Amino acid sequence: MLKYGVIGYGYWGPNLVRVLNTAKDSRVVAVADQVAANREKAAGLYPAMKITDDARELIADPAIDAIAIATPVTTHFDLAWAALDAGKHVIVEKPLCESTEKAEKLVEFAAKKQRQILVDHTFVYTGAVRKVLSYRDEGRIGRVLYYDSTRINLGLYQKDVNVIWDLAVHDFSIILQLLPGRPVGISAISSDPLKIGVEAVAQITLLYPEQVMAHVNTSWLSPVKVRQILIGGDKSMIVYDDLEPDTKIRLYDKGVEFTQDPQRQYAMKVEYRVGDMLAPQVDSREALSHMAAHANECFAANKPPLTGGEVGAKIVRLLELADLSASKRGEMLCIENW
Amino acid sequence: MLKYGVIGYGYWGPNLVRVLNTAKDSRVVAVADQVAANREKAAGLYPAMKITDDARELIADPAIDAIAIATPVTTHFDLAWAALDAGKHVIVEKPLCESTEKAEKLVEFAAKKQRQILVDHTFVYTGAVRKVLSYRDEGRIGRVLYYDSTRINLGLYQKDVNVIWDLAVHDFSIILQLLPGRPVGISAISSDPLKIGVEAVAQITLLYPEQVMAHVNTSWLSPVKVRQILIGGDKSMIVYDDLEPDTKIRLYDKGVEFTQDPQRQYAMKVEYRVGDMLAPQVDSREALSHMAAHANECFAANKPPLTGGEVGAKIVRLLELADLSASKRGEMLCIENW
Amino acid sequence: MLKYGVIGYGYWGPNLVRVLNTAKDSRVVAVADQVAANREKAAGLYPAMKITDDARELIADPAIDAIAIATPVTTHFDLAWAALDAGKHVIVEKPLCESTEKAEKLVEFAAKKQRQILVDHTFVYTGAVRKVLSYRDEGRIGRVLYYDSTRINLGLYQKDVNVIWDLAVHDFSIILQLLPGRPVGISAISSDPLKIGVEAVAQITLLYPEQVMAHVNTSWLSPVKVRQILIGGDKSMIVYDDLEPDTKIRLYDKGVEFTQDPQRQYAMKVEYRVGDMLAPQVDSREALSHMAAHANECFAANKPPLTGGEVGAKIVRLLELADLSASKRGEMLCIENW
Amino acid sequence: MLKYGVIGYGYWGPNLVRVLNTAKDSRVVAVADQVAANREKAAGLYPAMKITDDARELIADPAIDAIAIATPVTTHFDLAWAALDAGKHVIVEKPLCESTEKAEKLVEFAAKKQRQILVDHTFVYTGAVRKVLSYRDEGRIGRVLYYDSTRINLGLYQKDVNVIWDLAVHDFSIILQLLPGRPVGISAISSDPLKIGVEAVAQITLLYPEQVMAHVNTSWLSPVKVRQILIGGDKSMIVYDDLEPDTKIRLYDKGVEFTQDPQRQYAMKVEYRVGDMLAPQVDSREALSHMAAHANECFAANKPPLTGGEVGAKIVRLLELADLSASKRGEMLCIENW
Repeated sequence: MLKYGVIGYGYWGPNLVRVLNTAKDSRVVAVADQVAANREKAAGLYPAMKITDDARELIADPAIDAIAIATPVTTHFDLAWAALDAGKHVIVEKPLCESTEKAEKLVEFAAKKQRQILVDHTFVYTGAVRKVLSYRDEGRIGRVLYYDSTRINLGLYQKDVNVIWDLAVHDFSIILQLLPGRPVGISAISSDPLKIGVEAVAQITLLYPEQVMAHVNTSWLSPVKVRQILIGGDKSMIVYDDLEPDTKIRLYDKGVEFTQDPQRQYAMKVEYRVGDMLAPQVDSREALSHMAAHANECFAANKPPLTGGEVGAKIVRLLELADLSASKRGEMLCIENW
Repeated sequence: MLKYGVIGYGYWGPNLVRVLNTAKDSRVVAVADQVAANREKAAGLYPAMKITDDARELIADPAIDAIAIATPVTTHFDLAWAALDAGKHVIVEKPLCESTEKAEKLVEFAAKKQRQILVDHTFVYTGAVRKVLSYRDEGRIGRVLYYDSTRINLGLYQKDVNVIWDLAVHDFSIILQLLPGRPVGISAISSDPLKIGVEAVAQITLLYPEQVMAHVNTSWLSPVKVRQILIGGDKSMIVYDDLEPDTKIRLYDKGVEFTQDPQRQYAMKVEYRVGDMLAPQVDSREALSHMAAHANECFAANKPPLTGGEVGAKIVRLLELADLSASKRGEMLCIENW
Repeated sequence: MLKYGVIGYGYWGPNLVRVLNTAKDSRVVAVADQVAANREKAAGLYPAMKITDDARELIADPAIDAIAIATPVTTHFDLAWAALDAGKHVIVEKPLCESTEKAEKLVEFAAKKQRQILVDHTFVYTGAVRKVLSYRDEGRIGRVLYYDSTRINLGLYQKDVNVIWDLAVHDFSIILQLLPGRPVGISAISSDPLKIGVEAVAQITLLYPEQVMAHVNTSWLSPVKVRQILIGGDKSMIVYDDLEPDTKIRLYDKGVEFTQDPQRQYAMKVEYRVGDMLAPQVDSREALSHMAAHANECFAANKPPLTGGEVGAKIVRLLELADLSASKRGEMLCIENW
Repeated sequence: MLKYGVIGYGYWGPNLVRVLNTAKDSRVVAVADQVAANREKAAGLYPAMKITDDARELIADPAIDAIAIATPVTTHFDLAWAALDAGKHVIVEKPLCESTEKAEKLVEFAAKKQRQILVDHTFVYTGAVRKVLSYRDEGRIGRVLYYDSTRINLGLYQKDVNVIWDLAVHDFSIILQLLPGRPVGISAISSDPLKIGVEAVAQITLLYPEQVMAHVNTSWLSPVKVRQILIGGDKSMIVYDDLEPDTKIRLYDKGVEFTQDPQRQYAMKVEYRVGDMLAPQVDSREALSHMAAHANECFAANKPPLTGGEVGAKIVRLLELADLSASKRGEMLCIENW
C-alpha cells in the first residue's frame, strides 16, 4: 500500500486525493496547502488525515512513499526536486515545469535518485485515447498519415498562460504517444485579436518524417466548443470526438488505394475505399483513476510511467518551441537532440 | 437580352448553359466544345442552339455579347484574351488563370478594352455567404477577429491540382469579400503523406492587420466531410456549416467583454457573454443562378462584378504564394503591392 | 426563514436537503430515515443537523414549518396526512400517491387544514420548460396544435413501476402546464415484449378539445436515449431537446397558412411558412433550486404552487387511467369531472 | 429483354421510364399520358419511343410484355385489370388500390391469369432496408421486440389523402417485410388541428403476437423533418435514420439480459448490455433501380415479387383499417383472415 502526501488542495488537488484514496494500492496520508480555506475543506472530508500548511513536512515524512504536486507550475521544480531528493516518487500536474531547462534538470535528477516522475497528462489515460492506442498496436490503423485536432471553445482566458499552454498541451501528450518516431519541426502562428496581451488563437503544426503532419487548431474565441481529433491511417481512419457521449471513437474503414488499372492511372493515381464504421464501446471510467492505478504500479515496480518525466520534459520543450515559433510569425523550427 | 456563347461543355459548362438560359436577361445562343460526345449532349438538350467544335467561331460572332469559359485552366488566358479583344464580356471558371502574371495581364487588358471579367467563384453567390455579408454590413458581427475554416473530405485527388488550389480557393474568395483591409502575410504548410506527388493536406494562414488571422484547414484524406467556417466578431460570432440542410448559418450572441470590475481585472481581464442563437432562413436557390443574374446586371451596365477580374487575380496570387510558402516549409511571406 | 424537516435520505432526499439548505429563505433542521447508513451519510455532511429514524419526531416538532417527503410512494399518503394534520406545508416527491383516491383525499384535507402541498414535478421548474411557458404567455406560439414527446432510453427497469409511471409522468406534468383547457380522453397501448411482468414500451395519447392531441412515446428498450418534445403552434413551433447542451429550445418561425389564392385552394388548401430559428439562452441553473424557491415563496404566502396538490392528483389520475386503458388494449377513456 | 409500356408520365412516371430503360433486362417501348405537356416532355427525351394519349393502345400491343402504371390511385384497378386480362405483368405505384375490396379482386385475377403484380413500395428496395433485412436473416437482431418509427415533417397537405396514406404506408411496407408472423390488431388516433378536413397528425399502432408492437408516428405539422426507425431485437438493436447521409443504419450491440444473480433478481430482474456500435456501408444506389431489376427478374421467371399483389393488398387493408380505427377514436381493431 503506497502512502501519498498531496501538496496543493485547490482546484485539482481534491481530485488527486480522491482517486489516490480509492485506488486499490494507495492511500493519501497527508495534505499540505498554504490556504486556510483549502485546509478546512480537506479536513471536513477527511477528518483522519494529517493536514498542514507546510509542504516540507510531507516531503520529510519517512512514512510517505510518494508526493503528488498540484500547485502552480512555477513551484513544481522546487517541490519535485525536494521530494526526489528525499527519495520519493512524484506525481506532478501538467505541465511538468515552466521551462525545458528546469524540466530536463528534474528528469536528470530523478534518474540519479532512481525515482520516477509521472506527469499528470490525464488525457492519455482516458478510455478513448487508450482505445485509439490499442487500435494502433493491433495494426488496425496502419501507418499514421496525419493527426488533426480542433480544440476550441469560448474562454477561459487565464492569467499568464496562452492558448497553446492551455489547450495544445493535451494534443502534444496524445501525439507523443500515438505517432512513431519523433517530431522534426514545429511551427505556430498565434494571434491576440482582442489585444489583451495573451494569444487566444493559435495554429500549431508538428512535422514528422515521411511527410506526416500533426496539426492543432486552438482557440478561446469560438462560439462553439469542439474537441475533435482526426487520425488518418493507411488502413483505417479515426474520428475522436470527446464531446460525444456515446460514440467518442469512430473507426472508419475508409482510405485511399493505389489503382492497378493502367488506364485510370493516367487520369488519377488513386481510388477510394469506403466501408463500415465501427464505434466501439469506450471505457467511461474516470481517466484520473487509471492514472492513479498506473502511478501505483510504476512506483511499486520503480519503472517509468507512460507519461514519465522524459515525456513531460519533451512536452514542455514543444510548448516553448511553439511560443518561440509564434514570436517569429510561424517560422518552422528544427527540433534537434530529441 | 444578353446573348452568350459558352466554351466548354464538359463538367461545369452544362450548368452555365442552364442558368444563363433560364436567367431573366440572357440566353445562350452557341456552345463550343472539342469533344464530339459533349457536343452531342448539348445538341440533344438544345436542338435550336448553334453547336460547334471551334471556340473562335463564338468569339468572332458579332451577335454574341459575352463569352463564358468552362475549359481547363491553362486555356483560360488565350480564350479570355481573344474574347475581350473581340469586345465581349467574359465569365471564367475559377481560378482565373494558372499564374498571377497571366491573370494580371488579363485584368489590364480588360480595363483597356473596357470590358468586364467575372470569375465564377460560386461560393460568394450562395445564400449563406450573402447572409453573412449582410450581417457584416448591418454591423451585427462587429469587428471581425478571425476566420477559421475546416474544408476536408475523402478525395478527390485531381490531376495537376493540389488540395490548396482545389479547396482553399473557396475560402480565399469568401475571405476577400468578408474581411476589411488586405492580407499582409501568408503561410502554408502542406504534406503528401501518400507520396503520390501532390499535396493532399494543407494548413493555410493569412495574416491581416490588427492581429486578425484567417486560417484554412484543407484535406483530401479525412474520413468525414466537413465544411465549417467560424467567424468571430466582437459583437457576435457565426458558425457557417455548409452541410447543414436547414441551419447553415448560426449567429451566436456570444463574445468576450472587458470587465470593469477592478478586482476581477487582476485575475482575468475578460468575461464572457452568452446569449441567444439565431439560425436565419437562408436563401436556398442555386448560387449559380445568382451569379448569372449578377453577371447580366454587371455586363449590361458595364460595371465591375463582386468577383471581377481583379479579385480573381488576387485569388490566383494567394494560391501561388501559398504554394511558394509550402515549398519553404510554411515561411510567412509578406504580401506586397496588393 | 422556513424550517424544514426532510423525511427520507435515500436517492432523492440528499438533493432536497441541499437545495432547501442553500435557498435564500429556508433551512433544513432535521432529517429522518429508517436506514442507518443513510442517517450516517446525512450526519457526515451536516454535523449540526438533527438526525433521527422516526419521521413522527419531525412531524411533531413545533419548530418545523414544512415537511419534505422523499420516501417510497406508498408511504406518501400517511406521512403527508400527518404533516398536514400537524399544520405543516408539505413537499412530496412525484407521484403524489399511488392512487387517485388517496391523492384526492390528501388535497381535500390540505384545503381543510389551509396548508399547501407541492408535488416535486421537477421538470416544470427547468429553465427550458419555463422558457416554453414564457413564450406561450407572450403569444409567440399561438394556439397550441399538438404536443409530441419521445422519451426513450435503455432501462432502467424498476420494481413495481412500469414505463408509464416512470417516464410519461414527466410529460403529464408539462402538458398540464402548457395546454389550455383540459384533457377529455386518454388512450395508452403498452407492451412487455420481454415478458418480465412490467410494461417497458408504451404509447400514450391525450385528447384535448379542438382536435388537439398530446402524444407521449415511452420506452425502456431503446438503444439510444431521446428526450425530444415537439410543440406545434399556429404562430410558431418548438423543438425542446433536453439532451442538447446548448440549444435545448429551438423556436421555429414555421407554420401552415391558409392560402387566399382561389386557384390553389382547389388543389391544396394550405401553404407553408418557413422562417428563422431562434435558440434562446436557457437558464441552466438547477431546476430543483427553483422548485425550492417556489416552495418557500408559496408556503410563506400560503398560496397554491404551480405543481400543487390538485395538479399532482390530476397527474396520478392520468397515470391510473393510462394503466386502465392499456389493460383494455388502448381503449380511449373519457375523462370526466376534471 | 422485357418490353414495357408505361402509363402516366406525370410526377413518378419519368422515373419509372428511366430505370426500366437503363435496367439490364428491360426497355420501355411506349408511354401513354392524357396530358399533352407530359407527352411532349417524354417525346423530347425519348424521340424514338411511341407516345400516345391512349393507355389502351399499350395494353393491346402484343409486343409489350409488361405495363407500369403511374396514374392516380383511383385508376389503378381498371388499368391493372385490363393489363392482366391482356396477359401482361404489372408494376403499380403504391398504394395498389383505394380499397381492399378492389385490391383483393386484382390479386385474385392475377392469380387466375397467372401473371405477377409488383406494387412499387420503393422503400423496401433501399439499401438501408435491405441491410436491415439481411441482418435479420443472419440472426444478428434476434427476436424482434418492437418497431418504432417517427416519420414527420412540415407538409405536404395533399388533396384527398390523409397523413396515414401519405406517410404510414412506407412503414407498413417495411413492417410486413421485417416482422415475422402477422399483425393481429391495429389502432390509429388522428387529428386535424387546423380543421382543414384532412388528418395531419396520426399515431398508428400494430399489435403482433408475443407482445410485439409496431408504432408509427406521422405528422405534416412538424417544424423538423424526422425519418427515424428504431428496431429492437433481443440480440441487438437498430437505429435507421434515413436522413443521415453516411450512417443510415446503426447496429447497437445493446440489450437487456436476465440476471442470474438471485440477490439482484429481487430488486430488478434485468440488466443491460452495452457494446459496440456498427454503422455498415449501405448500398447507396437508387432504390428504384433495384425495384426495376427485381421486377424484371420476377416477371421473367413468373414468380411473386417481394412487394407483390398480396402484400400490396394487405397494405391497403391496413390503411383502411387505420382510417376506420381513427374514426372510432383509436379503437383497437382485430385483424382477421390475414
